[in-house]
Amino acid sequence: MKSLTYPASEKIYVSGKIYPELRVAMRRVSQHPTVTVTDGHRNERPNAPVTLYDTSGPYTDTAYVHDIKVGLPRHREIQIEKRGDTMQLDQLSSAYGRMREADKSLDTIRFPKRYQPRVAFPGKRVTQMHYARKGIITPEMEYVAIRENLDNEARGIISHITPEFVRDEVAAGRAVIAANINHPEAEPMIIGRAFSVKINTNIGNSALSSGMEEEVEKAMWSCYWGGDTLMDLSTGDNIHETREWIIRNCPVPVGTVPIYQALEKVGGRVADLTWEIYRDTLIEQCEQGVDYFTIHAGVRREHAALIESRLTGCVSRGGSIMTQWCVLHNAENFLYTHFDEICEILNRYDVAISLGDGMRPGSINDANDRSQFLELDILGELAQRAWEHDVQVMIEGPGHVPMHKIAENMERELSSCHEAPFYTLGPLTTDIAPGYDHITSAIGAANIAALGTAMLCYVTPKEHLSLPTLEDVREGVITYKIAAHAADIAKGYPGAEVRDYALSLARYEFRWKDQFALALDPERARDYYIESRRNAPDADDRFCTMCGPNFCAMRISQNIAEQCDK
Amino acid sequence: MKSLTYPASEKIYVSGKIYPELRVAMRRVSQHPTVTVTDGHRNERPNAPVTLYDTSGPYTDTAYVHDIKVGLPRHREIQIEKRGDTMQLDQLSSAYGRMREADKSLDTIRFPKRYQPRVAFPGKRVTQMHYARKGIITPEMEYVAIRENLDNEARGIISHITPEFVRDEVAAGRAVIAANINHPEAEPMIIGRAFSVKINTNIGNSALSSGMEEEVEKAMWSCYWGGDTLMDLSTGDNIHETREWIIRNCPVPVGTVPIYQALEKVGGRVADLTWEIYRDTLIEQCEQGVDYFTIHAGVRREHAALIESRLTGCVSRGGSIMTQWCVLHNAENFLYTHFDEICEILNRYDVAISLGDGMRPGSINDANDRSQFLELDILGELAQRAWEHDVQVMIEGPGHVPMHKIAENMERELSSCHEAPFYTLGPLTTDIAPGYDHITSAIGAANIAALGTAMLCYVTPKEHLSLPTLEDVREGVITYKIAAHAADIAKGYPGAEVRDYALSLARYEFRWKDQFALALDPERARDYYIESRRNAPDADDRFCTMCGPNFCAMRISQNIAEQCDK
Repeated sequence: MKSLTYPASEKIYVSGKIYPELRVAMRRVSQHPTVTVTDGHRNERPNAPVTLYDTSGPYTDTAYVHDIKVGLPRHREIQIEKRGDTMQLDQLSSAYGRMREADKSLDTIRFPKRYQPRVAFPGKRVTQMHYARKGIITPEMEYVAIRENLDNEARGIISHITPEFVRDEVAAGRAVIAANINHPEAEPMIIGRAFSVKINTNIGNSALSSGMEEEVEKAMWSCYWGGDTLMDLSTGDNIHETREWIIRNCPVPVGTVPIYQALEKVGGRVADLTWEIYRDTLIEQCEQGVDYFTIHAGVRREHAALIESRLTGCVSRGGSIMTQWCVLHNAENFLYTHFDEICEILNRYDVAISLGDGMRPGSINDANDRSQFLELDILGELAQRAWEHDVQVMIEGPGHVPMHKIAENMERELSSCHEAPFYTLGPLTTDIAPGYDHITSAIGAANIAALGTAMLCYVTPKEHLSLPTLEDVREGVITYKIAAHAADIAKGYPGAEVRDYALSLARYEFRWKDQFALALDPERARDYYIESRRNAPDADDRFCTMCGPNFCAMRISQNIAEQCDK
Repeated sequence: MKSLTYPASEKIYVSGKIYPELRVAMRRVSQHPTVTVTDGHRNERPNAPVTLYDTSGPYTDTAYVHDIKVGLPRHREIQIEKRGDTMQLDQLSSAYGRMREADKSLDTIRFPKRYQPRVAFPGKRVTQMHYARKGIITPEMEYVAIRENLDNEARGIISHITPEFVRDEVAAGRAVIAANINHPEAEPMIIGRAFSVKINTNIGNSALSSGMEEEVEKAMWSCYWGGDTLMDLSTGDNIHETREWIIRNCPVPVGTVPIYQALEKVGGRVADLTWEIYRDTLIEQCEQGVDYFTIHAGVRREHAALIESRLTGCVSRGGSIMTQWCVLHNAENFLYTHFDEICEILNRYDVAISLGDGMRPGSINDANDRSQFLELDILGELAQRAWEHDVQVMIEGPGHVPMHKIAENMERELSSCHEAPFYTLGPLTTDIAPGYDHITSAIGAANIAALGTAMLCYVTPKEHLSLPTLEDVREGVITYKIAAHAADIAKGYPGAEVRDYALSLARYEFRWKDQFALALDPERARDYYIESRRNAPDADDRFCTMCGPNFCAMRISQNIAEQCDK
């Protein structure tokens, strides 16, 4: 596996105050001093290091040696045990899971290490929301409070984020900490509009995809570039085993769409889907450690006919599957009718629900239509039902929405869904740029996030066309980091501008290496620069070839400053 | 030279009603029929062709044969002659121009064909604004009215755009038709917030750059992908000759920053710049056919010290040059003091002024600061002065501006600059993504354009790092076409959604070729798709590999529709 590091960076760990044993991981980027020459004397003014939010997990800790067959350290395990409300199981609760486990032919592709799954004692709820409502600040809550603040305190930046605030936001349903008790490898993070904007990346193998190492590498890659959560949308025969490899090696929360696997189990025949198969799939995945499920429970039989009035019908995979099921059986969506049972399963593992937007518009023509907003109202009802079971909830949204219709989405979500965190795909602000939909959607994503969307589902350049390659994933993640960060700044998020300030100062002072180290993609920035200087390696570096030395405004600017000072 | 064509497209020419001899060029994209099969019968429903705005000039007309040494047809020449207010000169009015012309050593690189420059009769003003204020609808005005509307009338789309409306907007200074009488090759286009959002691309050779063909190819390339105007920021020894090649072969208005060439003429020594050299440069370029000049006349001596309070000083090249000049001479900016003379030169050729924003913020920290807005107020004064001379004016703006500070820029521009068209670089909404600044800025560009900015200056991925390659230009242009189009839709611009609708319908009906032909970048969309299907060439094409056949929501959607209908 490729080793991943960030330039000029070290991993630091910050302890908690309530829980001193916490080790909240951050990335610290060192900076070169500013050098000036006055009357022949060289003066150096040091530049403080910059602390950055770090989604890469232990992989970028140079002191850490990873074994993909063992997985990441299970650092949350002790905290979970200490709570004393869970038990370890002797065997898997899912019939399908047990069947796969018993199948010797799978030994070669199985994750070698076997961890016993954990579940709440009967009648217990073990969700972060449950604890928050009881007034408890969990280690996860303190972790995210520290993580969100970075070094704000040291910089004297006033922040509203405290462990108490985190608890209250989770208790109110305005924020989600997706942290399955069976995924103790993950570093806690929080999704809510009072916090920094997060991004989700999708990975998914195809039926043709190769080894498990490759799947894990994709996950690492996404985390390395800055993905805050990871949805595993894999299909194919060995979806169960693949998922195990990914979760055991994944430092960020993992989400899935269980209906995809359920459909695989019935050979792709929508009509054959049943609540029982779906239920067993939920339990199977809860015990593997999936942190949140996309559930298309808002798709209703009575609304199926509405999609005929649309230009592009239903473009949500889960939504189209459930709609078809409803129509074929002329029956209500079993995810809707069994929603309380689903919640009672999930609150024993602390798996969050991401209520799927089956009626996401697939073209700007269909944006904000009746299908979409009727479903949103239903998602609001379901959110309240989930909260009755102490299950954490997010609401999925957008798709293709033109700029002038974005605000209405956010406003309606807040009112219909009682401020549950909004989690949107893009939105794409025009349909006319296949091959560039990371960009059409980054425009929409930045806007909707600035208005309060808590997490953005990334879009790659290959959207609508094919599966993304690793390079597409990188392009998609960086594009969405840009959108999320632009929104954080627009929101006035505490400390958001620190990185911009430091990078701009480095740029102005021609500290190129510092500029690259602080860039979202240090490698690309450096490569572009180096390539352009190939013909002039010995030239002084107080300019870039964009303008050339005689026309470098920054250089002239500094001369002006010197002249003004004289 | 590479031949450039658009797939499934033909060039069409629409005649005028006031001026029947006009041939307004557009691109018409044909569509395949929609095929359905009912009870074994194959039914075809034709799909109307889609008419698109076309910036590529005659190059994409398959009936046209281009000779780079002759240049494009000078179709506006007759119109200009007919007005009877101009004369052809026997010799160039610029001393520098005459010197270059007399230099035999330049014969090998000189554009072979010699067209006599044209100038207004003494005392005459020949600007579109002058005509508009007299109540005249010029051929250029009718041309842009037809061009902006495409096939709206045939589609029954109500539009506010008529030749009379164009005239009134130009008369009021709210729109600019940059159309130098010495650039009769250019197809008229309009820049104003009541019209579709335009994009400008910058090309510029470096000192090392090679032949003239390559320079012309860059210009064609930008027009092919959708650039509405082209700024030639070339430097180096043969800037005069290079410009001649570009203008004679360029179907869109060309802009320059004359101070760059003036500085070359004094060997890069800012202190040696003089009004006389600058004045001669203006005349030289007016007679070559430059359609608009960026002039940094708003930079004032008294404001120079303000840039010291900034994080990144002055990042406008022209702004930093003029500021340095003011400081070195402790004198007022000669572009400011000679502004009326400049206008009296320009109104004899109809060259528009783009008032440069020397105090553009170079980091989000510096956005909306005193330097920037003081200058904006001065630009507003200058705009009014230009209008007194019937000179058309745009106002340059942004740079690095976070999302929450964008609206103030637009509002202040409208009030301080009396609704003169705003022409902005980006803005970049964060500083932290060198290598991806086409994206950081597309977010800002779409937002500011939706608020009323008339033209967007593109940014390529290489911004801050090096000169863009042809591929970077393509990436930058497409990115900005996305931003401009997203803004047109947000503005409710008449007919803007036609292309989105047609492409989405093609997508939904799996008419892949139609989807590609309608895409902003047909080639890339097709390449991504084809690449992904390489392993399954014989498979049916009613899905893409992003989701695979079993999970294609659109396919399922269509099945649902059929089931619902039964």
